[in-house]
Amino acid sequence: MRFEISPLDTSLQSQLQSKIDQKTKPPGALGLLETTALRIGLIQASLNPVLNHPVIAVFAGDHGVTEENVSAFPSEVTAQMVLNFLGGGGAINVFARQHGVDLKIVDAGVKVALPADERLIDRKIAAGTDNFVRGCAMSAEQCDEALMQSALLVSDWHQAGSNIIGFGDMGIGNTSSAAMLIALFAEIPLADAVGPGAGLSTDGVDHKRAVLQGALERTGMTAAMARESPRSALLEYGGFEIAMICGGMLRAAELGMVVLVDGFIATSAFLCGQAMQPNLSDYCVFTHRSAEPGHALALSQLNVEPLLDLKMRLGEGTGAAMAMPVLYSAVAFLNEMSSFADAQVSGKKV
Amino acid sequence: MRFEISPLDTSLQSQLQSKIDQKTKPPGALGLLETTALRIGLIQASLNPVLNHPVIAVFAGDHGVTEENVSAFPSEVTAQMVLNFLGGGGAINVFARQHGVDLKIVDAGVKVALPADERLIDRKIAAGTDNFVRGCAMSAEQCDEALMQSALLVSDWHQAGSNIIGFGDMGIGNTSSAAMLIALFAEIPLADAVGPGAGLSTDGVDHKRAVLQGALERTGMTAAMARESPRSALLEYGGFEIAMICGGMLRAAELGMVVLVDGFIATSAFLCGQAMQPNLSDYCVFTHRSAEPGHALALSQLNVEPLLDLKMRLGEGTGAAMAMPVLYSAVAFLNEMSSFADAQVSGKKV
Repeated sequence: MRFEISPLDTSLQSQLQSKIDQKTKPPGALGLLETTALRIGLIQASLNPVLNHPVIAVFAGDHGVTEENVSAFPSEVTAQMVLNFLGGGGAINVFARQHGVDLKIVDAGVKVALPADERLIDRKIAAGTDNFVRGCAMSAEQCDEALMQSALLVSDWHQAGSNIIGFGDMGIGNTSSAAMLIALFAEIPLADAVGPGAGLSTDGVDHKRAVLQGALERTGMTAAMARESPRSALLEYGGFEIAMICGGMLRAAELGMVVLVDGFIATSAFLCGQAMQPNLSDYCVFTHRSAEPGHALALSQLNVEPLLDLKMRLGEGTGAAMAMPVLYSAVAFLNEMSSFADAQVSGKKV
Repeated sequence: MRFEISPLDTSLQSQLQSKIDQKTKPPGALGLLETTALRIGLIQASLNPVLNHPVIAVFAGDHGVTEENVSAFPSEVTAQMVLNFLGGGGAINVFARQHGVDLKIVDAGVKVALPADERLIDRKIAAGTDNFVRGCAMSAEQCDEALMQSALLVSDWHQAGSNIIGFGDMGIGNTSSAAMLIALFAEIPLADAVGPGAGLSTDGVDHKRAVLQGALERTGMTAAMARESPRSALLEYGGFEIAMICGGMLRAAELGMVVLVDGFIATSAFLCGQAMQPNLSDYCVFTHRSAEPGHALALSQLNVEPLLDLKMRLGEGTGAAMAMPVLYSAVAFLNEMSSFADAQVSGKKV
């Protein structure tokens, strides 16, 4: 599976910047809204960009590594939370409703069989990954299947009219997978990439660090090796939801959609995708800084300033959902504010 | 004029916290949304708080100190921007429309006569303040009139059904007033409270610092004196829009409304109001951190973490408007998310 992501067409860059600067405000005074408006304009190659039919897709999967006791919650919570999402009671349901976001719930690899439900998109690759302390989390075939299945879903959603998409996750144990990938791709010491996830104690975090250190030593994988073969890192240490988020992001960028990167888990998928296709980052807006400590380190390595820092650490795409109105504000000021000339407002003194 | 602000009724605090903790998420995982939900619940003394008819009031006024060349824009821009707001073309118009906020534009003391317009609320105290380098910015009578007039407006808006209000400003030169007040009330060295405002050069900021230092020496006012007589500091160095924001905040808190504090200017008004009535802060949510450097220092002195940090520095209440959906998310998760028991989701492992 190969994704062909075009570099951004920057031919409108100076016109976009000029349009932004002529709005009735001091130059730069709308901060991140201005850089976001510029990016969306470039992605859409338009001076009048429009956001249509926002989608957030939550991919759920279980993790074999939970048998190492690396999570504060039992693994059955993954399936229970999927049912909670289907019932409309999760945080992501609340925020998606608030912002008119079309929420998609995908079974990427939940351990137990979930009841048939028309609101659940069944793309289960397998009943959870294998324990990556002992061997590969998934096979190469499973990894490719996950990338492809989510790419197909994104194609469908794009076809149905969406040009902006956020990706969320649900998976007890997935901060362990994400820590491995973030350590490798963002070149952060593994010990620093490991954090409490959903709420481990200090002792719990120490144990998780030791477990993941062992998993890294199993393969001896280095950052250079991960960069050379991102798929190898993904199948060794990833999760089905992470692989699907990765494939979904790559396909969305290929289609010229605005891609919202949520928190710690989504960023691990982004990093993997970026290693596969460096142009991915051109289409991405980083929506929030998670309170999971490794996320700030990863964002800092990427040299990106996310839109929000609400001290959230929930996953589910909740950071992307909370940022949705900010994205809409960026487009709205660009399209709706008057210019100095329109409003006959005097400019800066010389 | 005396405002009687009740301390928060904390009798529901533990029940509110317990409701928050029973939602299907790790404890604390919604970060600032959780603390905001708790505050709104306490303000309304309700486990099921509701936000009704959000208002943002933008108070516009001119500043005599602009004759000292302390601003990057000419003072006629104040009136021009008021007309721009009336025409719907300002940033605050865009964001207010986006979030269903009832926007009120108030002439607090614009220098020129503005054309009669039913969308403009005329409460002009005078045609701009006097130059506070040479004497008081306003008389005691003017200061009291400003506090009272805005309190009356807020009473009307509350009567019409609003229980959440943000305060914005428009006034060329008003970062000079705000810097004086923030230096005095937040006990920050004046030199650190002074910044580029709408876009002064480094030389311009140096000049502004020297001018404001002179204005401080004129009265010899100290932080202790300002705390002792907040009205004296306000009438010496304030603006009509700052005095009106101050009175509006105090009245809103007195009425038990949720008060949104915008950026640098609104924070100077808040500090003055808090010095008059320390209970004011109980009713306030700090909505954003302005890029005007003194604002971060003031927030840090207050030990508050604002909801947003979008590197904005525009005023007009734009930070409050951008934060409006975050306030609604806080209330929505509290009212709409399922609990662990409702959704039959397992809790944290012991």
